Amino acid sequence: MINPGELKNKVFDKEVALQKDKTDPTSYLTSMFELPSDIIYLCGNSLGAMPKTVPQKMSEALNPGWSSGLITSWNNLGWHRLPLTLGDRLAPLMGAECGEVIVADSVSVNLFKVLIAAIKMRPGRKNVVSEASNFPSDVHVIKGALQNFFPDMELKLGEESDQDILNYIDENTAVVCLTHVNYKTGRIRNMQKITNAAHEAGALIIWDLCHSLGAVPVDLNAHNVDFAVGCTYKYLNSGHGSPAYMFVAERNIQDAPNSLSGWHGQMKPFDFDISFTESDTIEKFRSGSPPLLAHLPIEESIKIYETIEFSELRKKSQGLTQYFIELVEGQCKGMGLELISPRNAEERGSQVSFTHQDGYPVMSALIDHKVIGDFRAPNIIRFGFSALYNTYEDVWKAANILSNILKKEIWKEAKYSVRKEVT
Amino acid sequence: MINPGELKNKVFDKEVALQKDKTDPTSYLTSMFELPSDIIYLCGNSLGAMPKTVPQKMSEALNPGWSSGLITSWNNLGWHRLPLTLGDRLAPLMGAECGEVIVADSVSVNLFKVLIAAIKMRPGRKNVVSEASNFPSDVHVIKGALQNFFPDMELKLGEESDQDILNYIDENTAVVCLTHVNYKTGRIRNMQKITNAAHEAGALIIWDLCHSLGAVPVDLNAHNVDFAVGCTYKYLNSGHGSPAYMFVAERNIQDAPNSLSGWHGQMKPFDFDISFTESDTIEKFRSGSPPLLAHLPIEESIKIYETIEFSELRKKSQGLTQYFIELVEGQCKGMGLELISPRNAEERGSQVSFTHQDGYPVMSALIDHKVIGDFRAPNIIRFGFSALYNTYEDVWKAANILSNILKKEIWKEAKYSVRKEVT
Repeated sequence: MINPGELKNKVFDKEVALQKDKTDPTSYLTSMFELPSDIIYLCGNSLGAMPKTVPQKMSEALNPGWSSGLITSWNNLGWHRLPLTLGDRLAPLMGAECGEVIVADSVSVNLFKVLIAAIKMRPGRKNVVSEASNFPSDVHVIKGALQNFFPDMELKLGEESDQDILNYIDENTAVVCLTHVNYKTGRIRNMQKITNAAHEAGALIIWDLCHSLGAVPVDLNAHNVDFAVGCTYKYLNSGHGSPAYMFVAERNIQDAPNSLSGWHGQMKPFDFDISFTESDTIEKFRSGSPPLLAHLPIEESIKIYETIEFSELRKKSQGLTQYFIELVEGQCKGMGLELISPRNAEERGSQVSFTHQDGYPVMSALIDHKVIGDFRAPNIIRFGFSALYNTYEDVWKAANILSNILKKEIWKEAKYSVRKEVT
Repeated sequence: MINPGELKNKVFDKEVALQKDKTDPTSYLTSMFELPSDIIYLCGNSLGAMPKTVPQKMSEALNPGWSSGLITSWNNLGWHRLPLTLGDRLAPLMGAECGEVIVADSVSVNLFKVLIAAIKMRPGRKNVVSEASNFPSDVHVIKGALQNFFPDMELKLGEESDQDILNYIDENTAVVCLTHVNYKTGRIRNMQKITNAAHEAGALIIWDLCHSLGAVPVDLNAHNVDFAVGCTYKYLNSGHGSPAYMFVAERNIQDAPNSLSGWHGQMKPFDFDISFTESDTIEKFRSGSPPLLAHLPIEESIKIYETIEFSELRKKSQGLTQYFIELVEGQCKGMGLELISPRNAEERGSQVSFTHQDGYPVMSALIDHKVIGDFRAPNIIRFGFSALYNTYEDVWKAANILSNILKKEIWKEAKYSVRKEVT
């Protein structure tokens, strides 16, 4: 055991990392995820690692769930209700109540539904406020909805600062639609301040939680949020393209129309009645049948969250990102990296991004050396940290490999400059 | 071996069934599906049986697909492209070309997308024609779309006869939206005649293939169909709520707008460009990320279809339904059953439905005796036959058990009258 006193001037020493892991109260969680031992996976903000219980869960869902249960499994195994029951279990993580969340469809489809609902709840208003630095998909959904259904309305795109967004919100604003944690920089928006401003202007607010839920504290009802959407395949570790969630504040459920009214939004879907009696719960926002096999891993992920104190996880996440910044900035001075994530841990999600003029070959070299981060155009290298399965040792190794690649100019090797499609 | 000559007057003899199975060229397909040996599963028109290769496929998708491949599996395993590649492989089954089909979202979401597209392609027209006997979900989607986005347009609901539908189609009709095979009766609509009538009136047509694709011949391009949607979890055996498909005729792809424009409908989704450059292919109709694990069994199902001559399957399907009608009508005369499926096999999908004034307890008793069909209000007992895995012996047994239940009035036992939710 190393005496912490001895470590003061040894910030770059691996022993520091090992010591941090030893004293981390959440370190046992790492063993709940399946990850290759030879890589350092810093891409959980794009696609989370697999909980170890998933294969058993899926195997049982197929045999006997599908093979023997057949049609009866919809009811007998509670599969038909999963959009609601998973939503109820996800609700505490976002500061929502039971009955305010469903797990269904994709983020794009859910955003479309709540956006249309919100615009219809503010008739006569002239614009939707979003952000130019938003995840592009959200802007595409908004543009598509406005062009097709509200051609007289305008989309106003603010810049990255909260103040710039606030400047756009006024009595003409129907809806403010923003992402909580920026996908490029990891900057956390001030949810309370912007939500208040929207409400003061008489507008409604939609938050996209894709890059925050499961990684940073989210308290939708405490901030009086109207609607939220997000995915489950990033920090929530539920598999490739796993179904998304949608939050509708209890006070809005009755008034918010679902323009995509389908079978499962019916009060009694199995009466097969041609007349549509809309459900009076959050289930009114369900449309078609849930793609069941893709829903199941979500439960395995939620189970893990249900055992932990979220504040501990956030503390570890901040510890990991802070440590990474210290190590990288300490070891890579003058090597062309510039931190674009907030230096203040309170304003930072669970990721660290740097710019580098040759970001693409730098990230290619990192991946080749088993440090899996990702690149975002034009020049950003991005590292996502999951407090559930990343260790301080991972951070130490990644920083050292990065510094090595920069010092030895490994990234200048010709093979790293070839662009491939990056997901 | 029984001499077929001897069987002429032995239609109710089990040997006839066994003989039919022996000479059935598709009988080997049964072994490709996992089904409990103690039940007779006649509900494949609601939820198909599991292809035996699915567990292995899913297991590999988890390990190493998700666990080791992580983010790279989107590209390396072709997962990101599955909506298109599965669509291309499904296309021949519906008489479509590569590039006209995607597998994504749910039937309701897809119907919404193509309905909006079709209405926008016929601006100024006043109504949408559908059918009162449609699967209710489709009507809910149409009503929701009209109420929210085209409040001046009217929904006209014809009755079950093709002629009644034709009577509604005129120069005011923007879109005709019908189901190919009726979910209650199994009646096949005349796709050619109605499509022609829609086009002659200047309208566009959408066909819902949920109860037909994989069970009856579908030739969309031969009939000049504009749009189609359908599910993969019934006759296509891809699991609970597996993703749906959407067909857009090549000639319509450029002009049909996707109002639900999301990430994956972008020309280059991974450039993360805030400006939206719509894909110029069928992929423009993709919205969010595909729920991958729910997509995978579809491939296992398609593989089976790729090995068979569809006309053989249709012949068997007609054989099964015809034999069931003969056996039931022959053995249950005067017992309150009335056939509501077409007697002419050419007009009948792969199901047989009867009415019985106490249909619910009759079906409950059947299920208790291991014959799994389903009940549809108010008085319909419905039997779906999958030519892929049902045998003539299944048919023989089911008919005999039904006749026994009726003859002995087993369905009058109190326990069968208690209603449960039926999916």
